[in-house]
Amino acid sequence: MANDRGDALVVGVDFGTLSGRAVVVRVRDGAELGSAVHEFGHGVVDRSLPGSDRSLPPDWALQVPRDYLDVLRTAVPEAIRDAGVDASAVIGIGTDFTACTMIPVTEDGTPLCELPEFADNPHAYVKLWKHHAAQPQADRINALGAARGEKWLPRYGGLISSEWEFAKGLQLLEEAPEVYDAMAHWVEAADWIIWQLTGNYVRNACTAGYKGILQDGEYPSEEFLRELHPDFGGFVKDKLDHPIGQLGDRAGDLSKLAAYWTGLPAGIAVAVGNVDAHVTAPAAQAVEPGRLVAIMGTSTCHVLSGAELREVPGMCGVVRGGIVPGLWGYEAGQSGVGDIFAWFTEHQVPPSYHEAARAAGKSLHGHLTDLAAKQRVGEHGLLALDWHSGNRSVLVDHELSGVVLGQTLATRPEDVYRALLEATAFGTRMIVHAFTDSGVPVTELVVAGGLIRNELLMQIYADVTNLPLSTIGSAQGPALGSAMHAAVAAGAYEDIRAAAYAMGAVNSGVYQPIPENAAVYDQLFAEYAALHDHFGRGGNDVMHRLRALRRAAVAGR
Amino acid sequence: MANDRGDALVVGVDFGTLSGRAVVVRVRDGAELGSAVHEFGHGVVDRSLPGSDRSLPPDWALQVPRDYLDVLRTAVPEAIRDAGVDASAVIGIGTDFTACTMIPVTEDGTPLCELPEFADNPHAYVKLWKHHAAQPQADRINALGAARGEKWLPRYGGLISSEWEFAKGLQLLEEAPEVYDAMAHWVEAADWIIWQLTGNYVRNACTAGYKGILQDGEYPSEEFLRELHPDFGGFVKDKLDHPIGQLGDRAGDLSKLAAYWTGLPAGIAVAVGNVDAHVTAPAAQAVEPGRLVAIMGTSTCHVLSGAELREVPGMCGVVRGGIVPGLWGYEAGQSGVGDIFAWFTEHQVPPSYHEAARAAGKSLHGHLTDLAAKQRVGEHGLLALDWHSGNRSVLVDHELSGVVLGQTLATRPEDVYRALLEATAFGTRMIVHAFTDSGVPVTELVVAGGLIRNELLMQIYADVTNLPLSTIGSAQGPALGSAMHAAVAAGAYEDIRAAAYAMGAVNSGVYQPIPENAAVYDQLFAEYAALHDHFGRGGNDVMHRLRALRRAAVAGR
Repeated sequence: MANDRGDALVVGVDFGTLSGRAVVVRVRDGAELGSAVHEFGHGVVDRSLPGSDRSLPPDWALQVPRDYLDVLRTAVPEAIRDAGVDASAVIGIGTDFTACTMIPVTEDGTPLCELPEFADNPHAYVKLWKHHAAQPQADRINALGAARGEKWLPRYGGLISSEWEFAKGLQLLEEAPEVYDAMAHWVEAADWIIWQLTGNYVRNACTAGYKGILQDGEYPSEEFLRELHPDFGGFVKDKLDHPIGQLGDRAGDLSKLAAYWTGLPAGIAVAVGNVDAHVTAPAAQAVEPGRLVAIMGTSTCHVLSGAELREVPGMCGVVRGGIVPGLWGYEAGQSGVGDIFAWFTEHQVPPSYHEAARAAGKSLHGHLTDLAAKQRVGEHGLLALDWHSGNRSVLVDHELSGVVLGQTLATRPEDVYRALLEATAFGTRMIVHAFTDSGVPVTELVVAGGLIRNELLMQIYADVTNLPLSTIGSAQGPALGSAMHAAVAAGAYEDIRAAAYAMGAVNSGVYQPIPENAAVYDQLFAEYAALHDHFGRGGNDVMHRLRALRRAAVAGR
Repeated sequence: MANDRGDALVVGVDFGTLSGRAVVVRVRDGAELGSAVHEFGHGVVDRSLPGSDRSLPPDWALQVPRDYLDVLRTAVPEAIRDAGVDASAVIGIGTDFTACTMIPVTEDGTPLCELPEFADNPHAYVKLWKHHAAQPQADRINALGAARGEKWLPRYGGLISSEWEFAKGLQLLEEAPEVYDAMAHWVEAADWIIWQLTGNYVRNACTAGYKGILQDGEYPSEEFLRELHPDFGGFVKDKLDHPIGQLGDRAGDLSKLAAYWTGLPAGIAVAVGNVDAHVTAPAAQAVEPGRLVAIMGTSTCHVLSGAELREVPGMCGVVRGGIVPGLWGYEAGQSGVGDIFAWFTEHQVPPSYHEAARAAGKSLHGHLTDLAAKQRVGEHGLLALDWHSGNRSVLVDHELSGVVLGQTLATRPEDVYRALLEATAFGTRMIVHAFTDSGVPVTELVVAGGLIRNELLMQIYADVTNLPLSTIGSAQGPALGSAMHAAVAAGAYEDIRAAAYAMGAVNSGVYQPIPENAAVYDQLFAEYAALHDHFGRGGNDVMHRLRALRRAAVAGR
C-alpha cells in the first residue's frame, strides 16, 4: 500500500467555533495543495434563535447543524479548485470538530431542531462546547461522584466539566424533558458529521473518553445516574452508548449524497471523527511520549501521550488511545491565553501606543512585543496571574481571576504586556510540573496555533519551561491532522505514527532555553507558584469572595 | 483687639514645590479678597545646576533660594492689586513652606550657593523635601537609633525619613565637608523665608519637631551623633540648635527691605514659619482633637490633634504644638494618591475612552468617574493595593508596589479606576485604625486639597471610613491658613483656635456614610487588610524580591 501512494490526495476538514476549513493534502509527503474556509451562516447562537426575538439565557451557546453541511458543500469543492487537482485523486476524507459539542437527533440522525415541532425549542439545537449553562448539573455530578468515590473521577483530575456530555444531557432532561424523550441519540458533532458523510453512526474513542466518561470500556453506572435524577438512569443505555471507532479507523465509505455535496468520489474512506487539539499532535509529529503539544490561541489546549496510566491532579482527562492508538492520551489546558493579551490591548493601552504602532506599520501586539522584547528578564518588576478567564489546569476553578502585582508610577503598558505573556508561560510550566511530578515525562514543548508567530512569546516559553521548543510546520495544523487520519483510514499508512512522520511537519528545537534567562525565570516562577498556591489553593480565597460580592451587587441592581 | 478688626487685612503666602501663592484675606471673616501665583524661575533642579552641564546624580532635587524671594517681590504685590485694596490695611503676613527643605547659610543667613566659591557645588544649594539621595544616611540613623534604643525613635513610628534634617545633614558632612564646615546654620526654608522678612532667625516648632527630632526639648545626643560619624557630634550644637518659635507667635516685624519688596507696611507682624499641611488644619477649622485632616493631592498628608501623647505605629511623627499650640499634633501620610489616578489615566486608558470623554466635554478623570459612579459597591469584583509609590503610613516601606486583583476578560477601565480610588480610601482607613487602636480618637474626616472636587471619591471615603466627611471651604487652604497665623501673630485673635472659627471655612458633614455601602466596604476592607498584611508585613516579601530582580536587571544592561 505505502508503495502505491503516488499522487494520491486526502482532504481534511477542521470544524472550528465560527467556520470550517478544508485542506487538500498530498498523501506521500503532506504537501498542502489548496484550502478554503466557510464561515458558519449562523455563527454562535447566543442571543436568540434564528427567526425569533426571544432572548436566550446567559451562558447559552448554540449552533445550527445545517451550517456544518454547508462547509462540506462549499469549502471542500473550493479547496479542490484552489489546489488545481482532479478530485478523483482523493482517496479519503477526515474531520475534526470542537468538543464537547452535542446534538440531539432522531434514530436516523436528523437533528431535533429540524423537526417542525421543535424548531422553536432552544434545547433542540446544537449545544456548542462553550455553552456553560449546565454548571449546576456539573456541580451535582461532581459532588455525587466524589461522595460515592466513583473510580472514573480521578481520570479527569477530580472534576467533570459543565461543557461535557453528562452535564449537558442532564440539563436537557431537567429543562426540556419533551426534547429528551424525543431524542434517540445524544451525539457529538464530531460523530454527527461522519454520520452525514457515510450514513453510519460511529462514536469516536476520543470524545467518548474525554467528554463522555468512557473509561476501561465502562460508563458511569445506572445507579449513579438514577441518584442524580430518577429519570436519568437510562441515559447511557438509551441515549449515549454506541459502538466505538478508534482514531484513524475507517468509519465507512463516502456516501453518494455526500459525494454529491463535496464533489469527491463516492466510496472513498471516511475516517472516524476526531477533535481539533488531538489531531494537531500528529500533524506536529508529536506521536511519542514526552512531547507536550500546546495549541496556543485564545486559550491553550495541551495534549501529551504517555506509555503508562498515571493520575495527574488537575488535568482535563486521560484516555487510552485518545490521541494516538496504543498510548495514554493526556489533556490539560489554560482557559485564557491569547484572549488575555487581546483583552489587555483592547482595554489598557493608551492612544500614544496606538499611534506609535500605526506609525511603525505594526499591529498593537507587534508594537508592544517589540518594546517588551528590549527588556531583560525581571526588568519590569511585575508578576501576574493568568486567571482572567479562570484556571482550567491544574486548579480547575473558574471562579479565580487575574492579578498584576508590582506596579509603580514608572510601569508602562509594555511592562504589563510582557508580565501577562510570562504569566501564561508560568501557567504552562505549572502543567508541565503536574505531569512530571506524576510520573508522565515531558521532554519537549511543541507549539501549534496562531500564537507561534510571536517570537518573543516562544522564547519566553522556552526560557520559562527550560525545555527545547519546537513549532508546528503547518499553519493549518488541525486540518492537516484530519487529512492524515484520512490517509490512515484509506490504508495509505499503517498507522498515524507512520503518517505523522511522512506527512506531519515540525520545526524542531527552533527555540532553545537561554540559560541566563532560565535562571531568573526560575526565581520568578517560584514567586508565581507562591501566589498561585496562596490564591488558588485556599491560602486566601479572596477571589471567590469578590465573585460573590460581584454577583450580589449585580443582582441588587 | 478683637474689637478693632474692622477691615484689617492679612497676607498668607504658600510656598509649594513649583510656585508660591499669595492671598489677601480679611481678618474679621476670612474672606479671600485677592490672590496671585508666581512660578519659581528654576523650578526643581534635578538634572544640572543653573549654568552648568554637569549632571546631578539620581534622586537629587535642589532649589535656588532667590526664587523664593521673587515670590515676595511679585506675587504679594499682585495679590494686593488683585484684591483692589490699600496695602496699608495689612496688619500681618504669614507663610507656609514645603518641608523638610533645607538651606546651608552663613551667620547672616546668606545661602552658601550665593557665595562665588560655592556656586558650582550642588551641596551649597537648597535640598528640596523630595531630595532622596540621603537614604544610606537615614538607614544608618535608623539602625543605630534602634540599636541604642533611642527614646525619640517611637515618636516617628520607628523610622526617620531620608528627607529630614539629620539624614540630609549627615550627607552634607560626608559628601561635601567643605560646605559643611562653611555652614553656620542648617535652616529650614520655612524659617529662612521668615529670616528674610524680619531679619531674625526663629526656628519654628513644627519642623523642629517633625523633621528635626526635637522632642521634649531635646535633640539626639552628641554621643549618638558621634557614633554616626566622628565629625557629626557637634551637628546639633553648631548647626541646628536655635531658639524655637511657637506656631502663631510673632517672629518679628516686617523689615524695611521686605516692605520694599512686598509693598506692605514696614513693621507689621510676621508669623513664625510653618508647613503647608499643618496650616491647612486651622483653615478647615480642624483645631480640636478627633478631626483628621487629609490634604489630598498627588499624595495625601494626614494631620490630627490629640489631647494625649500616644505612640502610633507607622505614623510620620507626633509633636507637641506641632499643629495647634497645646495639643499633640500627629502626622501620617499616603505617598501615592492623585498620582496613582493620574498614572492610570495616562498609561492604561484606551483611545475609545479619550474620545468619549472629549465628546462629553469631560476630562478623562471626569469621564471615568461618571462611569465608575454608576456601579454598586463590589460590582467590579476587583481589589487593589495603593502602593504604586510605596507606603508611607502605616508600613513605612517604599519598596512596596501596587496590586490589582480580580481582573476578568469583562474588566473595563472604569472598574480598575474605581478600584484604585477605593484602594486609597482603604489606605486612609488603615491610618484611622492605627490612630484609634493607639488611643487617639478620630471622629470626623476633613478633606482639603485638589481631590475634593471628585464627589464620587469623597463619598467613597465617607463610606469606607464610615465617618462623616467635611470639606474645606477654601480652594486656597494653605495660603488661608498662613494668613490666619498672621492674624494671630498680629494680635487680632487670641489664638489659632479663635482665628480658625472666625476665618476658617468648612462644609461640615457634606458627605455622610451610606450604611448599605459601608457594610459592603467593611467586607472589602477586610480583604484589603488581609492583602496589606500578607504583602506588607512579611507574609510574602515578593515585592522586595521583585525590586531586587529589577535592580539587578537594570544594572546588567
